[in-house]
This record gives sequence, structure tokens and C-alpha cells, in this order.
Amino acid sequence: MTVIDLLTGVDFAGEQTEASLPPGLAELRADAEYKHEITPEWMDLLSKIQLQGSRPQSKREWLELYLHLKRILEK
Amino acid sequence: MTVIDLLTGVDFAGEQTEASLPPGLAELRADAEYKHEITPEWMDLLSKIQLQGSRPQSKREWLELYLHLKRILEK
Repeated sequence: MTVIDLLTGVDFAGEQTEASLPPGLAELRADAEYKHEITPEWMDLLSKIQLQGSRPQSKREWLELYLHLKRILEK
Repeated sequence: MTVIDLLTGVDFAGEQTEASLPPGLAELRADAEYKHEITPEWMDLLSKIQLQGSRPQSKREWLELYLHLKRILEK
């Protein structure tokens, strides 16, 4: 990661860097079991999910949300 | 609803009109049991949820997604 990543939250490919991710979501993306299926499209979608600032708070909550959405959207 | 609504998908308050909503979501918003709790903020959030064009297809699927997100985000 570069200084520019930290400042902008996106790298030069336009993908989100660790710095811009909510707590827990970066951990989920880094998990060996899920890293190969959580695509940039999934990260974009998950990052957008919030209601008046409220969003999942932990890796486990992000996982619950991801698994539920995956069942709904990838069928 | 006006012709302009149909053309643009938003009314003059910037809120989404029926015309711009995916199938099933407008039905959920119109349901007597849920209409008072599904706020414009909820509609904005639900409308954004899609993965490569895939999204809930029916009122029942939107309800399932809404209830799950509500449990996660409104606690």
C-alpha cells in the first residue's frame, strides 16, 4: 500500500484499499476460506450497505451478511 | 405520477418513483404492513443491492432481504 492509497482509499485500478474499508470487512476479505470468492464486485456491494451510518461491525457480522446475500443473489 | 417521473425515475424531491423500482420492491413498499417502516433511506439502500445485475425478483424475496438487513442494521 502506498501513501496515495491511504489518502484516497482507492488504488490506481480504482479498487478499494484496506484504508477505506469498514472494520471487520477487510478481515473477511483476507480470510483464507473466503478470499477467493469475495470479488471486487462483492466488496463494492458490501461496502455500500449502510443505513444512517449503521453497518455490520465485525468480521462475523460481515460474513453473515455476505452469506445471506450470496444465497439471494447467486442462484 | 407525471410524465417527467416516468422519464427520469425520480420525482422533484429526488425520491424514487415506481417507474424506477425493480420488480417486487414497489409491491413491498405498498404493502399495508410494511409501508410505514420502509423509509426512503431503506428504499435507497435496497435499490442499490445488486450483483452483476442480479437482485431479488419478487416481493417475497425483497421482504426476506429487508427483514434480514433490518435485523443487522437496526440494533
